[in-house]
Amino acid sequence: MAEHVVYVGNKPVMNYVLATLTQLNEGADEVVIKARGRAISRAVDVAEIVRNRFMPGVKVKEIKIDTEELESEQGRRSNVSTIEIVLAK
Amino acid sequence: MAEHVVYVGNKPVMNYVLATLTQLNEGADEVVIKARGRAISRAVDVAEIVRNRFMPGVKVKEIKIDTEELESEQGRRSNVSTIEIVLAK
Repeated sequence: MAEHVVYVGNKPVMNYVLATLTQLNEGADEVVIKARGRAISRAVDVAEIVRNRFMPGVKVKEIKIDTEELESEQGRRSNVSTIEIVLAK
Repeated sequence: MAEHVVYVGNKPVMNYVLATLTQLNEGADEVVIKARGRAISRAVDVAEIVRNRFMPGVKVKEIKIDTEELESEQGRRSNVSTIEIVLAK
């Protein structure tokens, strides 16, 4: 079964809330909210808004944090934190 | 047993990494890294830096996200997301 994912970036939080609600309403039992770096705070906002304001029945099934290594065009390496929040019906 | 907590705010991330390492080195089996709003991303950075660079044996035992209601001096209410990351030896 294809994984239902919402990648959170720098757009307004409601964009991602809507994307998550759409996937949950179109039959997805689980949606994974993913973000990196500063967007991590927004990803938590998305999960909390979906649960508190729109779909009280949805639970946080799992949260994973990790680190990714990025390489800039000049070849400079840096680490960025990542989060995955699994919402489940 | 007192809970060992590090509250992450807007200071440089290494301040909080040091605070976490200090508590773990002074005998705490678990340290809870707590943050709200935009500092949530930094809290994830703290957990990842502690684990990847300083104490590879430390595990992420649990991550909880929630929402707190804030009231401004003018009485205006707003919600803010929160995170708790439990690191365990």
